[in-house]
Formats: sequence, C-alpha cells, structure tokens
Amino acid sequence: MNATSGKAFVQRLETTAAATEALLLDLLNDKPLDNEIVRPKRLLDAMRYGSLNGGKRLRPFLVVESAALFGVPHDAALLAGAALECIHCYSLIHDDLPAMDNSDLRRGKPTAHKAFDDATAILAGDALLTIAFDIITRDEIHREASVRLALTRALARASGIGGMAGGQMMDLAGEGRFGDKEPPDVQKLQQMKTGALLHFGCIAGALLGQASKQEYAGLDTYGRALGEAFQIADDLLDLEGDAATLGKPAGQDDAMGKTTFVTLLGVEGAKQRLKNLIVQADTALAGFGGRADVLRATARFVAERQN
Amino acid sequence: MNATSGKAFVQRLETTAAATEALLLDLLNDKPLDNEIVRPKRLLDAMRYGSLNGGKRLRPFLVVESAALFGVPHDAALLAGAALECIHCYSLIHDDLPAMDNSDLRRGKPTAHKAFDDATAILAGDALLTIAFDIITRDEIHREASVRLALTRALARASGIGGMAGGQMMDLAGEGRFGDKEPPDVQKLQQMKTGALLHFGCIAGALLGQASKQEYAGLDTYGRALGEAFQIADDLLDLEGDAATLGKPAGQDDAMGKTTFVTLLGVEGAKQRLKNLIVQADTALAGFGGRADVLRATARFVAERQN
Repeated sequence: MNATSGKAFVQRLETTAAATEALLLDLLNDKPLDNEIVRPKRLLDAMRYGSLNGGKRLRPFLVVESAALFGVPHDAALLAGAALECIHCYSLIHDDLPAMDNSDLRRGKPTAHKAFDDATAILAGDALLTIAFDIITRDEIHREASVRLALTRALARASGIGGMAGGQMMDLAGEGRFGDKEPPDVQKLQQMKTGALLHFGCIAGALLGQASKQEYAGLDTYGRALGEAFQIADDLLDLEGDAATLGKPAGQDDAMGKTTFVTLLGVEGAKQRLKNLIVQADTALAGFGGRADVLRATARFVAERQN
Repeated sequence: MNATSGKAFVQRLETTAAATEALLLDLLNDKPLDNEIVRPKRLLDAMRYGSLNGGKRLRPFLVVESAALFGVPHDAALLAGAALECIHCYSLIHDDLPAMDNSDLRRGKPTAHKAFDDATAILAGDALLTIAFDIITRDEIHREASVRLALTRALARASGIGGMAGGQMMDLAGEGRFGDKEPPDVQKLQQMKTGALLHFGCIAGALLGQASKQEYAGLDTYGRALGEAFQIADDLLDLEGDAATLGKPAGQDDAMGKTTFVTLLGVEGAKQRLKNLIVQADTALAGFGGRADVLRATARFVAERQN
C-alpha cells in the first residue's frame, strides 16, 4: 500500500492536520513576542477557538506536499502552511458573522460569535489575519529573505480584494442583497472566494523550492484546477450531501437562490467538469513524474470527499 | 520661518497628507495586479470610502519624517506610510461597526457601514488590512528584501493580538461588557490600542534607514512617548473638547464609564504627564541633533492638537 491509496492517503492527511494543529496551538500561546505587549486572554481564546477546531487542514497539506516536491524541509513548509491556515480560519469566523452568512454552527459546534460575541469574533478574525503575516515572515521558513517576501506578497494577493475577500464580496452581491440583478460570474467568484487560498497552497511549494518557471507553471495550473474541483464538489455536496456528514445543513445554496456550478452546468454537467478537472490537475503535474502522486491523490480526494 | 514653527509645520503635515491621499487613491485603483483576479467595484468603493477621507495622516507623516533622518528616499517612505495608513483605516472601519463602538459618524461623515452596509464594511476592513501587507513588501520600498521583511513583521506585530487588535479587545473588556470587574491597565491598553501603530511609524524610519542600535533606541523611546502623549491628549479632548472641532461627540468616554488617563491621573495630573512626555520625546532624539526638529515639533503638535 502506498501513500496515494485511499487509507494511506487519509492517514497522511491526518498526520499533517495533527502537526498543523499542534503548531497553531504553539503559535497561539500566551507569551508575547518581541514588540508585542501582552496577548489578551479573551482574544487569544477566541483565536484558538476559531482555529483549533479539527479541520481537514487541506491548505497546509497542499503547502507541505507541494514543497516536498523540491525537498523543502518539512517544518519550514508546515510553518508556511500554518500561516495560510490562519487566513482560512479568519475567513470562516468573519463569514459566519450575523452581518455575513449568519451561521450558528460550524463543524457541528457553535460558531465563534456564538461561543463568544460578535465584537470578539470580529477581532479574533482580524488578529488571525494579522498573525498570518507575522508567521509567514519567520526566519525558519527559508534562509533567503527574498523567498519569504515573495510568499508574503503572494499570500496577501490571494487573501485580499483581488482574491478571497473580493470573492466573498461577489458572493454576497450574488445573493442580490445589494440590488444586483445579473447573476455573478461563478467561475471568477469561486476562483477568488475558495480558489485563491487553495491555489496559494500549491504555489507556496514552488516559491519555497525556488522552482523553475516550468515547475511553477505546473503547480499553478494544478492549483487552479484543484480550486475549481473543490468548489464544484462543494456545490454537489450542498445539493446531494447529508447534513450529519457535512456538519452543517445541506441545501443552503438552493434555499438562498445562489448561482453555483450546479445551477450553471446542471448536476451531470458539473460531475463531468469535475472529472475533466482531475485529468487537468493530473496532466499539469506530468513534469514531476511519480513524485507528485500524493498531489494527484489530493485532487481525487477533493473531488470525491463527502464533507 | 522654519518647518518646526506652527504654520510651517502644519503645511508640512498637510503636504504629506495630500501625497498619502494621492498614493492611496493610486494603490486602490481598479486594475488587478499579478495574481489578483478582479477587484470588485463595491468592495473597492468601500475601501476608498474608508481610507480617502482627509485624515491628518499622522502615521505616514511619522514614517516619512523618521525616514528622512537617514536620507531614505521620500517615495519609499511614503509607500511604507501608506501601508501603515491602510491598517489604521481598517481599524477605524471595524471599530465603528454596530458590534464594536456602534458609531454612525466619523469626521462628520457617515461611517463605512452606514454609507454601505455591515457586511461590506467588514470586508472592506479585512481587505485594507490585507493590502497593507502587499504594499509593505513592494520592491520600491527598499532594495534589500531583508529590510522589507523586517518592516512587514514589525507592522504585523504592531497591528495584531500583541498590539492594536489586542488593545481594542482590552478596551471593550474595560467597558465591562464581558463581565470584567477590574478596570483595565490603561497604560498597557493605550500602548496597544493607539500607541503601537504610532510607534511603528517612528521605528519604520529606523528600519528603512538601517539605523544603528543607538539610533533605533532613540526612535523607539520617542515613539513610545509620542503614543502615550497622543492618547492623553485624546482623553483630555474627549473631556474638554468641542464636538464641532472634534468631528464627533465629546464626553463619550465619561458616558461609557471608561477608565482613561484622565480618570486615572485627574485633569491636572494628565496635563503634567503630557508635558513630561514631550520632554521625554525631545530628549530621546538628542542623538539626531537639529535634524530631528520636525519630529520634536510633531510631539508638541500631538500634545496640543484640538482634534
């Protein structure tokens, strides 16, 4: 059995998830760093609550596995992955707020603003977003400052107005709440809202590994295909999934009248597109040969996951 | 008349404010950068609304003037100052939200969530915070990546849990809304909530200028004194100021039962402390001689301002 078969793959994913969880716990300790004054307990508790919650840690896994293609030290990749995960977790906390998606549950537990309060949740999101840009600069990530700087900038672009935050804005506009009558461009919306961070996870390895242009392009294409596959699988799960397995109610997109890949392509069209994307992801990694088998398995996992 | 006399100083401050405003307008244009997909109009509009609003731009001014001590190119310092101003503006947008300070007016105009809506204001704050960490990495800021990286990390620490965001949390806790019975440590709270960003403005020049340890220490001490002076002046203005000049209602601290430097030291004690801080700020700059006169004037301006 190798690391790309079903059970071994899941074990590998879980190992990185556990390592990420331990690292986040350490990063979110109560000792102030140089130039920090104190780390107020309530804010730290809310940051931990919103980040130490047993997610799949797919984004850090992508950083670790893409970095492994270039022999980047595991701990360095894990630290970059933790920075990325802080961004992902901040976005979930803010998305769940009453003014945004107004969700009471996340992975079967009360959302951060339910467990604490709205103000604390806003600040916990802000502080997780901010600490990501502290973590990504750390010396342990790469000996060359220019590499860490390139990572920092790429993370900012993936997360900001032209990436995740912009995608979230388009998603809200797509609900019609600002009077928009045109349905949103679903492809661009997903590329930004969910795709950009997944894509960053894939190119992070190339940046850490100081990849050639060709290697970078391969991971870039892989990352885009993976991002779209993730969203299509999500849209299909929302339609066909089971609330208990999902950890949240199913059918939310339909209830809110959202335009998704499924409303755009139909169920069968979406399933076919998903298959094509897996082939695209696979092909993009051709230059890496068998070394990229774990990333290939990741694309299949993303497409076939049940939650 | 030199640049440290009243009128010439204000002109100098206004010149940097206008340059910052122009630069922010340019940074917040609608053209996506490399690795950005699109910049959604509504989000960009809200980011502009929350940042292009004619503030004093004191923080960028501190970056520009501290950098000038070392002969750092003006445009480089201005860009670093714009990154800092994005953080400041994000914090105002989030602070004004209904779940936080619930303010309808800022500088006499509707706050961002009043002019747009709560969700857009949350995202505009997030996106301004994020773009700061894009801007601070730009090549134009310094030819050495290690310098830009040090700035990036210092900005993250000043803004995050051990800095501004943590200070905001302590401020909310100090209102008693989480059941805290002890009054907050006002000195620590202010050092974090308002002091950390002002302090960053002062040490940014030292980082950009690759200052000696002694020079860094001088600006570090100056920055701390300036930060506290700013807050004491703010507390006195809230008590004694005029709503029309302030651009917001006076007496808010007292109405909310907040512990401030004034409740802690009394009006006369606070005024005396303010005088001592100006002397401290002045003394800390001794090593720079007359070159630091503008920074000395800045400390006096901060202490004596009417809004």
